[in-house]
Amino acid sequence: MLATTTRSITDELAELRAAAAELHDLGRIVELLGWDQETMMPAKGIGWRGQQQSTLSGIVHERLTSPRLGERLGSLAEAAADERSPLSDADRGLIREVKRARDRAVKLPTRLVKELAEATTQAVATWQRARAESSWTSFQPDLTRVIELKREVAEAVGYAGEPYDALLDEYEPGATAAGLSEMFGRLRADTVALLEKIRLSGRPVDRSVLEREYPLDRQWQFGETVLGWMGFDFEAGRQDRSAHLFCAAIGPGDVRLTTRLSERDLGQALFGSMHEGGHGLYEQGIGEAVQRTPIGQGISLGVHESQSRLWENCVGRGRPFWQFALPKLTELFPRQLAGVGVAAFWRAVNRVEPSLIRVEAEEVTYNLHILLRFEIERRLFSREVDVADLPRLWNETMASTLGVEPPNDREGVLQDIHWGFGLVGYFPTYTLGNLYAAQLWAAIGRELPERDAAIARGELRPILGWLRERIHRHGGTYLAADLIERATGEPPNPRYLTEYLTAKYGQVYGF
Amino acid sequence: MLATTTRSITDELAELRAAAAELHDLGRIVELLGWDQETMMPAKGIGWRGQQQSTLSGIVHERLTSPRLGERLGSLAEAAADERSPLSDADRGLIREVKRARDRAVKLPTRLVKELAEATTQAVATWQRARAESSWTSFQPDLTRVIELKREVAEAVGYAGEPYDALLDEYEPGATAAGLSEMFGRLRADTVALLEKIRLSGRPVDRSVLEREYPLDRQWQFGETVLGWMGFDFEAGRQDRSAHLFCAAIGPGDVRLTTRLSERDLGQALFGSMHEGGHGLYEQGIGEAVQRTPIGQGISLGVHESQSRLWENCVGRGRPFWQFALPKLTELFPRQLAGVGVAAFWRAVNRVEPSLIRVEAEEVTYNLHILLRFEIERRLFSREVDVADLPRLWNETMASTLGVEPPNDREGVLQDIHWGFGLVGYFPTYTLGNLYAAQLWAAIGRELPERDAAIARGELRPILGWLRERIHRHGGTYLAADLIERATGEPPNPRYLTEYLTAKYGQVYGF
Repeated sequence: MLATTTRSITDELAELRAAAAELHDLGRIVELLGWDQETMMPAKGIGWRGQQQSTLSGIVHERLTSPRLGERLGSLAEAAADERSPLSDADRGLIREVKRARDRAVKLPTRLVKELAEATTQAVATWQRARAESSWTSFQPDLTRVIELKREVAEAVGYAGEPYDALLDEYEPGATAAGLSEMFGRLRADTVALLEKIRLSGRPVDRSVLEREYPLDRQWQFGETVLGWMGFDFEAGRQDRSAHLFCAAIGPGDVRLTTRLSERDLGQALFGSMHEGGHGLYEQGIGEAVQRTPIGQGISLGVHESQSRLWENCVGRGRPFWQFALPKLTELFPRQLAGVGVAAFWRAVNRVEPSLIRVEAEEVTYNLHILLRFEIERRLFSREVDVADLPRLWNETMASTLGVEPPNDREGVLQDIHWGFGLVGYFPTYTLGNLYAAQLWAAIGRELPERDAAIARGELRPILGWLRERIHRHGGTYLAADLIERATGEPPNPRYLTEYLTAKYGQVYGF
Repeated sequence: MLATTTRSITDELAELRAAAAELHDLGRIVELLGWDQETMMPAKGIGWRGQQQSTLSGIVHERLTSPRLGERLGSLAEAAADERSPLSDADRGLIREVKRARDRAVKLPTRLVKELAEATTQAVATWQRARAESSWTSFQPDLTRVIELKREVAEAVGYAGEPYDALLDEYEPGATAAGLSEMFGRLRADTVALLEKIRLSGRPVDRSVLEREYPLDRQWQFGETVLGWMGFDFEAGRQDRSAHLFCAAIGPGDVRLTTRLSERDLGQALFGSMHEGGHGLYEQGIGEAVQRTPIGQGISLGVHESQSRLWENCVGRGRPFWQFALPKLTELFPRQLAGVGVAAFWRAVNRVEPSLIRVEAEEVTYNLHILLRFEIERRLFSREVDVADLPRLWNETMASTLGVEPPNDREGVLQDIHWGFGLVGYFPTYTLGNLYAAQLWAAIGRELPERDAAIARGELRPILGWLRERIHRHGGTYLAADLIERATGEPPNPRYLTEYLTAKYGQVYGF
């Protein structure tokens, strides 16, 4: 009897794997079409591309909602719940993720998906005009409609705690508003205190060295060199230019980064490359056991962002890195960097300055921008506030946490495209990424005591090796909190980010 | 009663259109994945790409063979056969092409498709080694296996005349071996006679002007300029470099050409761009009535090739074109082209020289290379000859028609990759393209008497306008022979190619 059951689970699992491989392939094709659209597609291709994407989405939806997949998942989920089942962690992860995707697909009425697609297409177009004209009132009705539909999504998908949880779960499976709120609350208090210390230090940081004229071809060359130091495999990936930075994973053997270059901003391309390179290393490092399945990719946006932030900030904005990298950079830009020392350059790339715009914020203030959005989203979905309240709430919170107040809505509540796209519950993953990155960075520091000395010699591979083993190879096997605990020996804890920021900026600002 | 029937056909047609749109989208995605593979994909992406393509093929096959589509096509094909049905030509074309694709998909056993995929993958790999070593004996077993499987394909698909017809039909719907043989026989006799006249003229043509050093960036610039003159819309397409030249149609708004540049061969990139540009103009010109359906693309390889050959040869190797283009080219390459006159340059790009290699052949001898392959393929499939006879047959025919004999199999029977890929019945479409091009060119000359004078002023748009109206907009509505007759007032007739070649090369060689 046991033998029969075991064989039956094995058969069911093989069938699930086949269906999952197809779903995965379709997802990767969607990714390639998106990459192509941003980097290569001629302007008049847009309508055709929309139809192609829509056809693929339709097929994915049809596959996910098929009764046969439902039956298979039913018995497999039962087996996975039984600890004695002969299932590996990867098997359980696969069953969990396919079930999660199917449950969402089954629960969301086609009518709602279609209405949301139409509403967001319109809202994005309206947002573009509204932002240009700094006109909140023209955006408010469209955003209200999107939020209403997202509330319907939350009800359709369901939640244990509060409606917002259903939205969070799309980007960060397992995360809850209550859990985030607890971590984010501590982080906010610590960050505001740190910011006050920086203010009081009275020590200016000069970043003009980054704003000299840096020819683009040499910037490009340096960015590719740094990606090589990081261990990015250019036979399994490439880098291109595009207006929006992103990393597209077509497969572990085909990972594509984009960056943006600016002649008068040395940091933009470089840190952009390191950031997207961090995402790319995650995808290139997916282990064979989970490849070509829906868990053959990063588990969540938060964990993904931890990889990009770790390379961009912990490595790329760290002093040891510039001990090694500045002489190389000076070889490429001898005139611009003549006489610039490591300390001055490192301080320049770490200047803290509360500002109005999230995407221009540095490590310290960045999370305050995110916490503002998280609070607003959460309160919107608990119906504590209404869309009409957003500009006031935005400006008040900016003033109370960052000490700056937007002179208009373009530089305030209208600055991000996300809500127009219906991306609600997405912003918090940016700060989760920073939290996870700091916790991983601390663990790497404990386990590789030579970490900083190695970086100062240009040896970044031990860091990549550690991340490959603890994070990358698992793909989506473990949920984020579980994965972080397995990697670092402790559940996610915001104190590592506070400690990291306090230690670093204490050095930068001398307190 | 009539009203009910009519409505029912309308409903059936709407359903067919929806299914056909999905099939079309999937085909265009396959095309994009192929383009990306040749131009952008990193090396290690190949395995992933193979899986993605295989998943898409599986879905296309599943859709095509679905019983529901079969029922719908059954009643629609009946309606289409009735001349009184309220169906447009495009409707009838759509029904015909979907039915053709479905019939092939249903008739081919999955086992055979899989065996053929495996056999051709192996044969291509073997061919690469065999060609490098000029070793026919190592390729013969693999090719024998491929030919056996293609014979099975022919039997499974079925044919009215002879087995080879079933293979021809895949690339040139409606073509038959008997029909081609009649046209090709006349062409062969005429070409051999023309070649003899050229030999006897004793007039040498110097092409060394094309072999000077031409920097690649300016060659690229000129190629894009010429595509602009032709009317290629760069907002609905792009050109890239790749090892193999091709045109990928992702949609009429997204058509991608590739070309190859050589510093010591001015003709390669330029005529490559004009050739692929001709394919591209066809796809950009697909009419709205047939867009996003399986007839929303070129009807056959032969008609497609007629568009590329018309632009490459009739326009691009014509004297009027160089009256206009040579001064522009000389501005880009003043040193290399100093003192070169239109007559000398035009003769240089039209030198006739019987050679061993098809892809290096010019307009006159090219078709003899194709006729050789057509005859061999046809006799293989009527079992008149066997794979083992190929090298002998090849060398004998080369000697008797072109007057040259390959010193080894690498420069003989092993030169093309096509048969290894299982592309049998494909070669004849190249010569069909030349035949159709000459017939269209003659019709354009009759209907636009100012044709050559306009070209000499750089005005190519009237030619494009004519092709748009007579060929492009119809997409796959009419089968090739029907389309050519509608466009020119006469069924395909090889005399136009003979007349074109005789007139042109009489001028080049002075007889």
